[in-house]
Amino acid sequence: MTAVVYRGARTLEIEQRDPEPPGSGQVRIDVAYTGICGTDLHIYHGDMDGRVGAAAVIGHEMSGRVAAVGAGATALSVGMPVTVMPTKFCGQCAACRRGNSHICQAMDFMGIDSPGAMQASWTVPAELVIPLPAELSLRHAALVEPVAVAVHDVRRADVGADDHVVVIGGGPVGVLIAAVAQGRGAHVVLAEPDAFRRGVADEIGIESMDPTTDDVVALIDKRTDGAGADIAFEVSGSAAGVSTAVDVLGTRGRLVMVAIHTQPREIDLHRYFWRELELFGARLYQRDDMTEAVRLMAAGAIPADRLISRIESVDSVGAAFEALEGGGSVMKVLIEWQKEH
Amino acid sequence: MTAVVYRGARTLEIEQRDPEPPGSGQVRIDVAYTGICGTDLHIYHGDMDGRVGAAAVIGHEMSGRVAAVGAGATALSVGMPVTVMPTKFCGQCAACRRGNSHICQAMDFMGIDSPGAMQASWTVPAELVIPLPAELSLRHAALVEPVAVAVHDVRRADVGADDHVVVIGGGPVGVLIAAVAQGRGAHVVLAEPDAFRRGVADEIGIESMDPTTDDVVALIDKRTDGAGADIAFEVSGSAAGVSTAVDVLGTRGRLVMVAIHTQPREIDLHRYFWRELELFGARLYQRDDMTEAVRLMAAGAIPADRLISRIESVDSVGAAFEALEGGGSVMKVLIEWQKEH
Repeated sequence: MTAVVYRGARTLEIEQRDPEPPGSGQVRIDVAYTGICGTDLHIYHGDMDGRVGAAAVIGHEMSGRVAAVGAGATALSVGMPVTVMPTKFCGQCAACRRGNSHICQAMDFMGIDSPGAMQASWTVPAELVIPLPAELSLRHAALVEPVAVAVHDVRRADVGADDHVVVIGGGPVGVLIAAVAQGRGAHVVLAEPDAFRRGVADEIGIESMDPTTDDVVALIDKRTDGAGADIAFEVSGSAAGVSTAVDVLGTRGRLVMVAIHTQPREIDLHRYFWRELELFGARLYQRDDMTEAVRLMAAGAIPADRLISRIESVDSVGAAFEALEGGGSVMKVLIEWQKEH
Repeated sequence: MTAVVYRGARTLEIEQRDPEPPGSGQVRIDVAYTGICGTDLHIYHGDMDGRVGAAAVIGHEMSGRVAAVGAGATALSVGMPVTVMPTKFCGQCAACRRGNSHICQAMDFMGIDSPGAMQASWTVPAELVIPLPAELSLRHAALVEPVAVAVHDVRRADVGADDHVVVIGGGPVGVLIAAVAQGRGAHVVLAEPDAFRRGVADEIGIESMDPTTDDVVALIDKRTDGAGADIAFEVSGSAAGVSTAVDVLGTRGRLVMVAIHTQPREIDLHRYFWRELELFGARLYQRDDMTEAVRLMAAGAIPADRLISRIESVDSVGAAFEALEGGGSVMKVLIEWQKEH
């Protein structure tokens, strides 16, 4: 079977490998679609070579069908449509002991720390497999993992009906957060400088604005009669995004830190004190978030078609990464494997 | 009656004024003790002249007895021991509309924005008066307001039994937070560079350490087998305090921002994301915090005697402010008014 193998910065090779038969408690999945995530791009850039091994199969957003069932994996059967929660926790580290196994400190994140989903056949522990309902297409189901991220973030913020929500950063995760929050009845504004991404947001009914030309804080101030936003999601990774997120919040407003900030950021702690603001780090997802993501997608609550910009064959995987690297006019790109089966 | 009047930086004058008879819905209180707070020191330094009027009577920590009852203030009677919640909220601003009237954006904070408790006779709205139980001495009751601050902060953090708690900064509020948290069954360590203040903490059974010579993060790491603290209170106002507070927390650890940071501080947002840390601004108190503070003090749960370093007559008010300004070997200083009555 075909696998995409990372062999150092900007080098992906297409190789033929033998499928790995499922051991006890495992299943082998015929992969249908694999999505390309920002983390995959970081790996592609060579930024994560210290963590990603040589000849690594990356990828962790996927859908497929069970192809073979190992001993003891009795809840699954051949042909079942599935996705995978790619986070193997250790169960013993401090985070796991505190009940936070989803952010396990010794996490084996499949597609980073161990072989991932960018191969036609993927063998994984059965307990990480999430069965999919028949009404959810495998194409859409490749987005379950990023939707679970958005569900987790929205739950961290406890978004409620009629809350005023500002999402800063309109890439796939930002747009998904906006969609999930709006699905809960919140009033959502997405701040994103890129016109293409704003266009996608507009198409799916999410109000967007350009923070480089419009004043988000003033807009929210006007809409809320000076009260400020209830919730802000920082998904941009920029210092300006952090600053805007703090400034836009009303008393006891909640800022959810979704983006990865590789350097410390200045925060107005006096405003935190004065308005009793709150900040919540949010990372990955729990199993409940995955199943809720499946439910939302099966119910048609996530505009998956608008978020999937392109579907590429595995032969074009290099071109797909280059397109994403260029930023611009693309949201989610999927690699299609089904032609193999 | 005697009043202490602020007349510009480092100038307090002792004046004789006529007591103000209580109007409708008001009571007049014969003040027994008034505590000097860090905010009073800021005013004394001239840092808050823009907010404090000319010829202002400052002070907001106090105890006393009802001396006269205005029309309609039927729940109170002459002779009742009381303290006052000095926060008059407007009921109409954005914060009040959001249900956060305790941090009202148009707050009249008595002792800053309107006449305070540094006078032998104080006339206040009856609805802000908190009756005291007979078993609580008026001397101790002068600490109800700062204890309410600590109760509020501990409630913001939801401190529970066996939580590992680090309090950074061992002034009166830091020590009170430590005491209230320890009263809930938490394991508390107080980080404070001043030896006198560490001595006070030790005397009242709060473990303390010197962050300039000992490594708080390493200590907590060892005690929690690498898990990290559940909760940190930043009460020092220093950049180093913020940094330590972030570094000491385990996954989903909660940092409560109590101190006033007048300049932005750098925060390790990657750690916030990675460990799903939380940050809560905490300011002032709600009425429930005041009544809980009264209950704790009446139950003897707050080591008030050890926290009251000195009790001065009103004639020595200038010396009392100077002693506090010097920092060092003093925690809470009270002004005694009872000799007037």
